[in-house]
Amino acid sequence: MTETYPSQHLERAVAEISKLPGIGRKTALRLALHLLRQDVSQAHALASAIVALRDEVRYCSVCHNVSDSDTCDICANPRRDSSTLCVVENVSGVLSVEATGQYRGLYHVLGGLISPMDGVGPSDLQIASLVERVAAGGIREVIFALSPTMEGDSTGFYISRRLAEYDVLLTTLARGVSVGDDLEYTDEATLGRAIAARVSMK
Amino acid sequence: MTETYPSQHLERAVAEISKLPGIGRKTALRLALHLLRQDVSQAHALASAIVALRDEVRYCSVCHNVSDSDTCDICANPRRDSSTLCVVENVSGVLSVEATGQYRGLYHVLGGLISPMDGVGPSDLQIASLVERVAAGGIREVIFALSPTMEGDSTGFYISRRLAEYDVLLTTLARGVSVGDDLEYTDEATLGRAIAARVSMK
Repeated sequence: MTETYPSQHLERAVAEISKLPGIGRKTALRLALHLLRQDVSQAHALASAIVALRDEVRYCSVCHNVSDSDTCDICANPRRDSSTLCVVENVSGVLSVEATGQYRGLYHVLGGLISPMDGVGPSDLQIASLVERVAAGGIREVIFALSPTMEGDSTGFYISRRLAEYDVLLTTLARGVSVGDDLEYTDEATLGRAIAARVSMK
Repeated sequence: MTETYPSQHLERAVAEISKLPGIGRKTALRLALHLLRQDVSQAHALASAIVALRDEVRYCSVCHNVSDSDTCDICANPRRDSSTLCVVENVSGVLSVEATGQYRGLYHVLGGLISPMDGVGPSDLQIASLVERVAAGGIREVIFALSPTMEGDSTGFYISRRLAEYDVLLTTLARGVSVGDDLEYTDEATLGRAIAARVSMK
């Protein structure tokens, strides 16, 4: 049922906000009413940040990460190890790996995962440019840091076949029990993999 | 830990979006990346809807509901019963009561609930104007449709005392078991009230 809003401005705001993923009409109304209660400047700051995001953000011409310039800060950093590439789905992947503080190489942002159900094929992703980077030489290892899901696995598998002809090490994230997880609540698939891939303690 | 975003535009968008209630930085990033993937027009439509909402929306001078004009459509409707007022917390309350199709009277939107913890006192709400409407005469019944919470109850109690001197019927929503609820999962307070307020079946 569509409710009749007492104002067309409210109606339009709810309609636009509820287009965002995971936000229904009830939440959109709550957010709109929140904005109405705040200072005018907050709504304006939010709106201009959204416009600037969409109009000004660029993508690194090398790794396709979000960037404010043609080459992103990571690709332009001479202290990063340019012989290692970490393949991630999107910007969140870059942020997650960076947050570990364990990685000093470069990235390659695919812009999604292969998902026939959603109509996303290899040509919709930055796979050709990854193959080009590897073919250009100088890369020793490609690390796949994709989600441990069906889409992540098949995307990794597809790309690894495309890269098979090059002399480059292909690795993927270790699968195992999460740090801090209670074993009682670890799912069988994860526990099974962790047993199969058990490591020596000395 | 604050993450270093690869773009200041992305950083600013995440900062502004995460100011919204119930939206953390992870969700804000997800929403920002979604907007980046969509057509430019969608981000612009969202931004202009937010600006229009905050700049153009007005409040009904009678009931304080959100409105596009000085008097809202409900207050201006001669077919509504002007002898009955329904007191609600905010616009959502009006929408919820309207959605029932059971109410033909007018509204009075408080703009919040009394909550000393949040620094909201009676003078921050549209209580004085409610007393004025009742004092002006012509109103037979005031229905309190506030949330069945501590804040809702105390706000209703406070207002009912302010209105005690006027010859007007004060009522509140019936408390009882929800339609469709499984009795096994109904909390004791609700079930206790429903037993105490049991109604004859014939």
